[in-house]
Amino acid sequence: MRGSLRVVVVGGTGYTGAEALRLLAGHPGAVVVGATSERQAGRPVRESCPWLASDLILEPFDPAKIDADVIFLCQDNGFAMQHIDALVRCGRVIDFAADFRLRDADTYADWYGRPHVAPHWLNDAVYGLVELTDAAQLRAAQVVANPGCYPTACLLALLPLVRVGLVEGLPIIDAKSGVSGAGRSRTETDYLFTEVTGGFRAYGVERHRHTPEIAQALGRPVRFVPHLIPATRGIHATIHVPVGAGVTTEQIHDVWRETYAGRPFVRVVNFWPSTKHVQGGNSAFLRASVDPETGLATLVSVIDNLVKGAAGQAIQNMNVMFDLPEATGLPVGGVWP
Amino acid sequence: MRGSLRVVVVGGTGYTGAEALRLLAGHPGAVVVGATSERQAGRPVRESCPWLASDLILEPFDPAKIDADVIFLCQDNGFAMQHIDALVRCGRVIDFAADFRLRDADTYADWYGRPHVAPHWLNDAVYGLVELTDAAQLRAAQVVANPGCYPTACLLALLPLVRVGLVEGLPIIDAKSGVSGAGRSRTETDYLFTEVTGGFRAYGVERHRHTPEIAQALGRPVRFVPHLIPATRGIHATIHVPVGAGVTTEQIHDVWRETYAGRPFVRVVNFWPSTKHVQGGNSAFLRASVDPETGLATLVSVIDNLVKGAAGQAIQNMNVMFDLPEATGLPVGGVWP
Amino acid sequence: MRGSLRVVVVGGTGYTGAEALRLLAGHPGAVVVGATSERQAGRPVRESCPWLASDLILEPFDPAKIDADVIFLCQDNGFAMQHIDALVRCGRVIDFAADFRLRDADTYADWYGRPHVAPHWLNDAVYGLVELTDAAQLRAAQVVANPGCYPTACLLALLPLVRVGLVEGLPIIDAKSGVSGAGRSRTETDYLFTEVTGGFRAYGVERHRHTPEIAQALGRPVRFVPHLIPATRGIHATIHVPVGAGVTTEQIHDVWRETYAGRPFVRVVNFWPSTKHVQGGNSAFLRASVDPETGLATLVSVIDNLVKGAAGQAIQNMNVMFDLPEATGLPVGGVWP
Amino acid sequence: MRGSLRVVVVGGTGYTGAEALRLLAGHPGAVVVGATSERQAGRPVRESCPWLASDLILEPFDPAKIDADVIFLCQDNGFAMQHIDALVRCGRVIDFAADFRLRDADTYADWYGRPHVAPHWLNDAVYGLVELTDAAQLRAAQVVANPGCYPTACLLALLPLVRVGLVEGLPIIDAKSGVSGAGRSRTETDYLFTEVTGGFRAYGVERHRHTPEIAQALGRPVRFVPHLIPATRGIHATIHVPVGAGVTTEQIHDVWRETYAGRPFVRVVNFWPSTKHVQGGNSAFLRASVDPETGLATLVSVIDNLVKGAAGQAIQNMNVMFDLPEATGLPVGGVWP
Repeated sequence: MRGSLRVVVVGGTGYTGAEALRLLAGHPGAVVVGATSERQAGRPVRESCPWLASDLILEPFDPAKIDADVIFLCQDNGFAMQHIDALVRCGRVIDFAADFRLRDADTYADWYGRPHVAPHWLNDAVYGLVELTDAAQLRAAQVVANPGCYPTACLLALLPLVRVGLVEGLPIIDAKSGVSGAGRSRTETDYLFTEVTGGFRAYGVERHRHTPEIAQALGRPVRFVPHLIPATRGIHATIHVPVGAGVTTEQIHDVWRETYAGRPFVRVVNFWPSTKHVQGGNSAFLRASVDPETGLATLVSVIDNLVKGAAGQAIQNMNVMFDLPEATGLPVGGVWP
Repeated sequence: MRGSLRVVVVGGTGYTGAEALRLLAGHPGAVVVGATSERQAGRPVRESCPWLASDLILEPFDPAKIDADVIFLCQDNGFAMQHIDALVRCGRVIDFAADFRLRDADTYADWYGRPHVAPHWLNDAVYGLVELTDAAQLRAAQVVANPGCYPTACLLALLPLVRVGLVEGLPIIDAKSGVSGAGRSRTETDYLFTEVTGGFRAYGVERHRHTPEIAQALGRPVRFVPHLIPATRGIHATIHVPVGAGVTTEQIHDVWRETYAGRPFVRVVNFWPSTKHVQGGNSAFLRASVDPETGLATLVSVIDNLVKGAAGQAIQNMNVMFDLPEATGLPVGGVWP
Repeated sequence: MRGSLRVVVVGGTGYTGAEALRLLAGHPGAVVVGATSERQAGRPVRESCPWLASDLILEPFDPAKIDADVIFLCQDNGFAMQHIDALVRCGRVIDFAADFRLRDADTYADWYGRPHVAPHWLNDAVYGLVELTDAAQLRAAQVVANPGCYPTACLLALLPLVRVGLVEGLPIIDAKSGVSGAGRSRTETDYLFTEVTGGFRAYGVERHRHTPEIAQALGRPVRFVPHLIPATRGIHATIHVPVGAGVTTEQIHDVWRETYAGRPFVRVVNFWPSTKHVQGGNSAFLRASVDPETGLATLVSVIDNLVKGAAGQAIQNMNVMFDLPEATGLPVGGVWP
Repeated sequence: MRGSLRVVVVGGTGYTGAEALRLLAGHPGAVVVGATSERQAGRPVRESCPWLASDLILEPFDPAKIDADVIFLCQDNGFAMQHIDALVRCGRVIDFAADFRLRDADTYADWYGRPHVAPHWLNDAVYGLVELTDAAQLRAAQVVANPGCYPTACLLALLPLVRVGLVEGLPIIDAKSGVSGAGRSRTETDYLFTEVTGGFRAYGVERHRHTPEIAQALGRPVRFVPHLIPATRGIHATIHVPVGAGVTTEQIHDVWRETYAGRPFVRVVNFWPSTKHVQGGNSAFLRASVDPETGLATLVSVIDNLVKGAAGQAIQNMNVMFDLPEATGLPVGGVWP
């Protein structure tokens, strides 16, 4: 490797930003040259995030001071579109939030409840679902929209099947997420340990912002219903989808195997995977089962929401953008138990 | 109350049997006169189940020694049908397992992998889904089949809607269960704390025995896919079902409210309920949401699998069988947090 | 029972207040006639606490409107002393907080960081550690200080041994508590599910307010170090204490058995009890082991912090105050698993 | 790095063996050339341990076929001493179990309940508590005894203080461990998810084998009482120890800082650390507090039992044995949340 990519992490003390710092610490071709936090500015990372062994001093966000090869934006929705014109002058940008995921400004306004203030970037930003995105586009991209955690899990399973025409009818996505998806600053009663542990519930049933993101990538509508798992990490997407008469489980597995041949992170397995199998790693595990009685295929896809669903996929995007092997610095295996 | 029902619990040290003992300890109209356990015979209940404050001595199962008003069979599938002819001479029987749930012996043989040895009881046994079963039948029943935990949650939501004709097309049931559903003797690696905690997975996707039980009660096929929640108790059924054009959430709620008017345990709520809301109690919480884009209704139903899904419903059945108010001795509220 | 005690619960939507409501719902000799909440005033209990099946409308706290036999004060430290003169005119008072636990106003000021504003009540208030308090005092008490959760667990083990002179030297209490001890309104990052689950840590090592409470009851100093268990409920006190030469485990067990003979809730067991064995019930389990090499006894005491450590013990106090059998309406057994 | 160390992992599918495989996968100077498992022989690692992305085929243990630079023995107590003479001809040995930790064969026989069959190795085996062991000894060692998880946590805190004479009197160690310490094959009711979650309990109070291991290293007796945390990973040692008059917290911290100056994995912190802060990493966090009232110091030490307490420390030992920087291939930071 000819030298190190200089990375700045904007929002370094939330769960996804801190996960980026953790993973980048082991990346042989990248070095974190800056990390920002408004509240924790002036303190070293290891004080705000005691599990990280970094003495880097957190700084307030100031585009004028950023000089990097790549900038990870680990901020809330709305931040990236506000600062994107300044940021692209400082380095190539990977946005962890949703501002550049939807290609249509009106759809964005409708689902995110505010006008899009940087619509001129919507065409050029590349949706970075690495395995299913053209690598040439990523290599050329100035702005990459890192996909949402739910969409990553869902699309890895569904998109290859839609592309080959195996899907007939509306996919019903019954999705489940670990609690870290809510973030580290969600200090509400609903997210207290005492309230979450031992229970399981649905949320956002009427409307969840990942619905249009998935539908856009598939080019067709879906029904998406998320739930909260009493666990820290993990997305488990269970997708119920009508397939054509005679379509078999093996056919689905074959499409997946072909699509992901040679890719290090997506694995078709012959057991029903637990979210825990991919905990801490950048892998996605897929399995299907076609029910002959009903003509429905059940597709299961699991990822770690903070890794493949956020920081890991961002690094994978970075690797491809800068022409490194896509697995550089990323764990394939998970942390168990 | 004119004196106490004498209850014998066969299989008193498993999770459902012990839960029956816990609940019956607070029942003002019943007294446990015997409890059996093969392995723990000779020891007091409080030694095998230290959380129970009972000095009752566990005995080996012997129908010749049972004299009771009602016998709770908390055993594996296959036990009840083997002993039913002897047991009905000892008292009225409530079977917690599946032997008398399916009305057809061939269906039983197909799904449970063995011939039914007491098919003569299949017609007379009453399926004890209390809120949706004719009370007169229960009052007359010699044998009551206590419904499965998943079917209880699913049918409380679906059956009233099917009865009034609101359901159009195949219900897809994406169900989730706490680990206690696997029982206390399931000492396999897969159920170790270390393997379960922090993860979420599907199981029995190809085939689960609660499918025909639900289908029989509804009179139509369903697709049923269960998952394991990293929590001890609780069933969360998320049911995706096509409804007719123009059907609203409020209509569904109205059907439920009418069906369960005056019943203490089923509650239509205006938040997405957690399994934890009903933990330790005999209640079921229901909520629906119709998605106008897709014409799909999402129905959510939560119960405690060991209470409303097993021991609590058995006691509720007993209350009705013996003409007590159905809530006698049963907690409506849950244990939180 | 000759009619029902009228109970008002002040602070009905926190964990201890709600637990009082849950337990009182099954009490045959008491009826909750009022419950207060500032934030939730005007709403029924079942909206704020969906697990409770109560339609009681929450009211703002107003002593002028309270007319009860007994008032449960489930509020923060400082509340009771402020309102006590008004409240004793409305009914007998059981305070769940610390205002009347320490007999000395200066000690209170020192440990709680504010002057005591009702020191005239410190002599008359009775410390309601039911098993070890004179019942006559409780029957006469106008104000009962419900003991802290940690002190309850510790004193049930230690006090009988101190009284008979078995303890030689400083007791070192290594205590562990479930997270519900922090309360329902502790919406800080530290108490989020994601931060707590999977970890274990000490807190308050330098200074914890239960230290003087325990020392006062024992009449001697102790070293007290608390920890946070990644579980909802439970106190586990491990007490390391020097005993005289020749003192045996059996001697300690005998002292306990004698002290608690005929008492329903304290049980000496022959296994190392889990906090889970007493979850949801009002019991305390005790076990000891004397290590001959070091002359140290290890005493283990477990309770449910919300029941025996709060709401359950309050009801037990109420029962004794009003001359009911002490176990009336209280579960001896626990909820398992 | 001049080429890779060839490592064989004996017992590759248990928790510590699999953790060694996970960590070695990211080690730039080592390559796993073999892994053994009796039950899983013939299958690839990724089938037995789906979270590991390794296609290595598991083999039955056969010393005749092992040719390695270093052999990790991840087996039960008793295995190493039986095979050590054969194994040292195949490569240098790091034993994860207890066979070479105690220097005295009689003490071993007393605590492990069987005679030591390879006592001739007891003198030469080096106790590999890396930070506190002479590196020259490790570089020369043919056999290294990897310390127990509890002793690692305890000794990192206690040993430096004993060496400088700060400890006066008996250390009382109140230790807590995550459940993975029990291993992956401990398929007993006590370790089921349903039994463990939500509870906390002591075990081995009368006698635990880590007592003599700690005492030997300290050269003085200790009282050691372990508990089970309802979490997967982590050791939390709370050590109550009398210190001389006038000894301050800062003095203790200074001794630690001096002892561990320049060492990457041991960190003195100014907050009460959670076991979760070091989850998945090889770090140990230490903090102390001297209580002036009682003259007792409370020492807290946390590690991940599977990393610093097992596989991580083994790799750290390997690094030193082969003259690599001790942190090579090891994560300093933890996985959070």
